[in-house]
Amino acid sequence: MKNKVLDINCDMGESFGNWKAGDDAAVMPKITTANIACGFHASDPVTIMSTVELALANKVAVGAHPGLPDLLGFGRRIMAVSPDDIYAYIAYQVGAVQAFLRAQGATLNHVKPHGAMFHLMRQDDLVEAALDAIEDVAPEAAVYWPGPLGREPFTAKAAARGMRVIPEVYPDLDYTSDGSLIVERQKKPVAGAVIFRRVCQVLTDQELTTSAGNVVPMAINSVCIHGDGPNVSEVLDAVHRAAAECRYRVAVATAMPVAAE
Amino acid sequence: MKNKVLDINCDMGESFGNWKAGDDAAVMPKITTANIACGFHASDPVTIMSTVELALANKVAVGAHPGLPDLLGFGRRIMAVSPDDIYAYIAYQVGAVQAFLRAQGATLNHVKPHGAMFHLMRQDDLVEAALDAIEDVAPEAAVYWPGPLGREPFTAKAAARGMRVIPEVYPDLDYTSDGSLIVERQKKPVAGAVIFRRVCQVLTDQELTTSAGNVVPMAINSVCIHGDGPNVSEVLDAVHRAAAECRYRVAVATAMPVAAE
Amino acid sequence: MKNKVLDINCDMGESFGNWKAGDDAAVMPKITTANIACGFHASDPVTIMSTVELALANKVAVGAHPGLPDLLGFGRRIMAVSPDDIYAYIAYQVGAVQAFLRAQGATLNHVKPHGAMFHLMRQDDLVEAALDAIEDVAPEAAVYWPGPLGREPFTAKAAARGMRVIPEVYPDLDYTSDGSLIVERQKKPVAGAVIFRRVCQVLTDQELTTSAGNVVPMAINSVCIHGDGPNVSEVLDAVHRAAAECRYRVAVATAMPVAAE
Amino acid sequence: MKNKVLDINCDMGESFGNWKAGDDAAVMPKITTANIACGFHASDPVTIMSTVELALANKVAVGAHPGLPDLLGFGRRIMAVSPDDIYAYIAYQVGAVQAFLRAQGATLNHVKPHGAMFHLMRQDDLVEAALDAIEDVAPEAAVYWPGPLGREPFTAKAAARGMRVIPEVYPDLDYTSDGSLIVERQKKPVAGAVIFRRVCQVLTDQELTTSAGNVVPMAINSVCIHGDGPNVSEVLDAVHRAAAECRYRVAVATAMPVAAE
Repeated sequence: MKNKVLDINCDMGESFGNWKAGDDAAVMPKITTANIACGFHASDPVTIMSTVELALANKVAVGAHPGLPDLLGFGRRIMAVSPDDIYAYIAYQVGAVQAFLRAQGATLNHVKPHGAMFHLMRQDDLVEAALDAIEDVAPEAAVYWPGPLGREPFTAKAAARGMRVIPEVYPDLDYTSDGSLIVERQKKPVAGAVIFRRVCQVLTDQELTTSAGNVVPMAINSVCIHGDGPNVSEVLDAVHRAAAECRYRVAVATAMPVAAE
Repeated sequence: MKNKVLDINCDMGESFGNWKAGDDAAVMPKITTANIACGFHASDPVTIMSTVELALANKVAVGAHPGLPDLLGFGRRIMAVSPDDIYAYIAYQVGAVQAFLRAQGATLNHVKPHGAMFHLMRQDDLVEAALDAIEDVAPEAAVYWPGPLGREPFTAKAAARGMRVIPEVYPDLDYTSDGSLIVERQKKPVAGAVIFRRVCQVLTDQELTTSAGNVVPMAINSVCIHGDGPNVSEVLDAVHRAAAECRYRVAVATAMPVAAE
Repeated sequence: MKNKVLDINCDMGESFGNWKAGDDAAVMPKITTANIACGFHASDPVTIMSTVELALANKVAVGAHPGLPDLLGFGRRIMAVSPDDIYAYIAYQVGAVQAFLRAQGATLNHVKPHGAMFHLMRQDDLVEAALDAIEDVAPEAAVYWPGPLGREPFTAKAAARGMRVIPEVYPDLDYTSDGSLIVERQKKPVAGAVIFRRVCQVLTDQELTTSAGNVVPMAINSVCIHGDGPNVSEVLDAVHRAAAECRYRVAVATAMPVAAE
Repeated sequence: MKNKVLDINCDMGESFGNWKAGDDAAVMPKITTANIACGFHASDPVTIMSTVELALANKVAVGAHPGLPDLLGFGRRIMAVSPDDIYAYIAYQVGAVQAFLRAQGATLNHVKPHGAMFHLMRQDDLVEAALDAIEDVAPEAAVYWPGPLGREPFTAKAAARGMRVIPEVYPDLDYTSDGSLIVERQKKPVAGAVIFRRVCQVLTDQELTTSAGNVVPMAINSVCIHGDGPNVSEVLDAVHRAAAECRYRVAVATAMPVAAE
């Protein structure tokens, strides 16, 4: 049955040196793809190495999660960067993660911009620079972006280039009436029952009801989980139960076919 | 004629953001291999990108020049690092440089440890970690090390693994009576005539006379130049004249065959 | 004669570790106040120490030149920072420079925000945070800002608090028709004769003619020089000659009296 | 009664940006002096600001805890630094912490070198540089060092200069037969009953029995607690109970009088 696969992705490897973040060892067995921080907003070479090993040991596909060079701000502060900066920052970080994969005989599954780099991807020239870098350095990799496909420049341009795009939903975040993700720094725990209902709605109807009561289109093939959320275990269980309920197999996403414009 | 090729290598891309180091544009046309800083002791993603482009435009082979994570000390301060640190630092930095090469359809020529990381390569466990990283991440790459071959753990172990080793000579530095390189931070200009004489001696006799009058074995196939030296242009001319005088063709080194032990 | 003193200020200590910037030793004897980088956008502890010593040996008054935490971008990239960030970044950097002054029995003359931190000072909440930090940590210090006084929130608010404000002119930069400084990253050399004429106009008429032909008010008591400009020596000579021509004594600025609103 | 005061010091403010370390809010009310990380091995300007405020709100005396510039290694890796480096690193960091104290009308209580900087203090020239920096920048500050007084160069030289030295004991660590502290990176929880017994022995007999059965002199006036230890609350209670049992008042240490040599 086509497309009846649900991918679960999560940011991983966000420790830095002596500072630990998240319980990667507990989360890794329950996800299918890991977005690994690359050393600019979080992580460091030894952390990347051990996180790649942990992912592969759990048969989790590895993606690069590049960010802005702002450890102090966890890559969450918008910085005035140029297209050359974005190209080079992504190429550098993706190449670094690929090195640890190559050492294990594995390849990169995807690239997903982090934090403020994600927010900068509304600027056309920066989007083109980012996609250039990904195509040049990791032509084998898919890209992840909050769904639905083609609503924003990143997925529209990526699809136009023939890149594999994996649209994703954040079941613990809210959306605006036009379907944009509302990113909040302070994560409030969302009960497992709510997560279950939202994921079921998305999988069954390809729609999501916002907290304001709007119904927005939400055709996706991945669910993004926050590994540092206060009730991550409950959330993960709810996603797995929703997938089972809706007869989706939990596995690494293949790209959703993009309708010709 | 076997082995009648002389390689000229030079550290390149040692700028950092707004701070410029060396005149890479002037030096690049006169060398055959570039050791590109990788962002830990010097350089940054945009600098690596433009340095790789400059090298390729000049048909210069690109190597990675990984260092310790110490921008403030230019990677020249010994730090107490573990084998895991060394493995991960090298894998990360080599992977980052490879990304910019891949984007240009090129591959990595070699790896050469920088500064204090070079000095740490007298510790057996760190040498093994470094060679593991290079073999795992860039099996196609040669390694550079001051000659002659096999005198120090790095080249002995690399050769034993069947890695391609390029021994090099520093014609502007002095050597101890047992043939060890004496690294000095303050570069004193060495006259072109002296450089010419030393390179000729090395190419003709595979020996070098130290300033103390000792004659040490010096079979090499690369000459290392300091791009930030006060008279780099004079030095480069002298090396090229010495190569011509001794009927060596200046070209990227192939590895010297290692005698079976 | 009141106010017939001309101060010359210049950014100093912008080296970082192994990377050198500017010829501080040549410029220091010809200026009266130094804006010393504090380690966030440039400089490092050893550089601050030697720059403070160089300034004091030349009887130059020392100011702190705090910037955003962005060494890679030389503090020139706007970052989304909060008032708490600005307060803490300034307090930290000012305190660090004060330490080296205290060690020499000297005190801080002034504070002047650098680069993107300067540009952020159009946001009211960030201006208040910056002024709070300066008053709390260095109540003895003046603040520098492009003149004329009170045209922008920084000087208006500083004056309202009773802080000493030193308005300055940049004779090698252009101004908009409403008197705003146009900051350009690539410094074009401005001939000494032009500098001389501009400084004379400012000192004589308290006005400056922009390149578009507008005449803007420019009552100042300091001239800011770029130490890394291509013809800094020519510029410094022109400023000194202009001061002599207009019968100003070159000395550390005392604050200009602020007219009651 | 002279000297019947027991000080309890603890490293505080070891978070960095988004990464949190230790539960400072829980520990602060139970200690008398805080060693605040200064941004080189841990902490950042906003963290220092809030930690200083937390300390003062709890009437805890604030010390600076300077470290080597190695965030990635948490300042625990020995680096080859010069006396100028040590002087400037300490001056810079102490000045930064003093700024936040000055803003609150408070002054610095003490300076205590962290991690690898602590270990480097066995090198005479580095000890002199460190003491110079402390005397020059914070003449009002005491210095902390594992007791007993005068056994190591740091306390011997500090006492010879007339500086106030506070010797301290680590009740959760072991000591060698000659009284040297054995620093272990992995903290093993030591039961409250053991802590109680050790502190009582120290307070009563000015001696400590090592795990090997040696009795070493241990005249101290501060106890150092690890805020990130697994059972910090139990340890703190044990120290307070031991102080009560031995009739010591828990308060900020005044320096122990140094016997004339």
